[in-house]
Amino acid sequence: MTSTTITGAVFIATSVDGYIAREDGGIDWLTRRDDDLSETGYDDFVATIDAIAMGRNTYEVGLTLEPWPYTGMRVLVVSSQLDPDADDRVTVHRSIDDLLDVAQSEGAQHLYVDGGQLITSFLNRGLITELTITMVPVILGSGLPLFGLINDDIFLEHQRTKTLSKGLVQSVYRVSPDAMLEG
Amino acid sequence: MTSTTITGAVFIATSVDGYIAREDGGIDWLTRRDDDLSETGYDDFVATIDAIAMGRNTYEVGLTLEPWPYTGMRVLVVSSQLDPDADDRVTVHRSIDDLLDVAQSEGAQHLYVDGGQLITSFLNRGLITELTITMVPVILGSGLPLFGLINDDIFLEHQRTKTLSKGLVQSVYRVSPDAMLEG
Repeated sequence: MTSTTITGAVFIATSVDGYIAREDGGIDWLTRRDDDLSETGYDDFVATIDAIAMGRNTYEVGLTLEPWPYTGMRVLVVSSQLDPDADDRVTVHRSIDDLLDVAQSEGAQHLYVDGGQLITSFLNRGLITELTITMVPVILGSGLPLFGLINDDIFLEHQRTKTLSKGLVQSVYRVSPDAMLEG
Repeated sequence: MTSTTITGAVFIATSVDGYIAREDGGIDWLTRRDDDLSETGYDDFVATIDAIAMGRNTYEVGLTLEPWPYTGMRVLVVSSQLDPDADDRVTVHRSIDDLLDVAQSEGAQHLYVDGGQLITSFLNRGLITELTITMVPVILGSGLPLFGLINDDIFLEHQRTKTLSKGLVQSVYRVSPDAMLEG
């Protein structure tokens, strides 16, 4: 049974033109910048979540990073193909419903949802409540879009925007069906 | 002969996920917001430019707006098909080179470049020097991207970011080939 009490938060970097990776998934444009990540509030954000949910693509990008970026975090991966026993740092789930059931049974109510496709699925299920988007001052011109196909326009309520060093601009939004009406 | 002394500036609104219009060109998500446009600095921006250059799509969106949004501005439209005599508020040019020649001959050195395709062409020619991007707090999930295919990554130097009312976030960038090196 899928619970509806689980909420998700997004913490993601994009190019100015809204791409989270190159067409091939590459994030060299991001990793080579040598930004001061402590300044992004990532640690504070992670402290607010119970577990991280990601798709296979994002998991495989994580595998290429040194060190493993999710040390100390409960990591749930949605994949129809990954071997469930291949990596004891994560659990593998065959569907989002399965992932939600497991998270619920573990008392993990607030998830960090990562990866364009999984974020899109969570958005379409109405499970994302907060988005932190950090804009990197580069135009890529093509790549994997921030989100995939969304069923309906999703209205956001702007919470705050901070200019970080090296031209990063970070905005926090809450999903708000009534944002348009509130003006 | 195409001059290289012409520079272009971009002043554009996008959804949080980087779309400037729906797939069909629709900008209802933008126009129905009833934002206070004076707050966006649009008038100050327009005062800095000599003329506006746009593609046919953008011109045709302008035709649907009441009143005509370019009153008092010199408007140059790039189109291979538009009848040059159909609208005496604009001149029609068969190519960007032609447009640049005419602008140059008129002493219009700093152009407001509008429309995703034309902006992309100007970016690829290295003619855009400044971008003002106003992010509207809505996720569309699909649409016409802010830019088209860019030949190489374009590095930007962040100038300033302002939070406007109703959750609009406006950032100004300068194109800077050395932005990465400057840190």
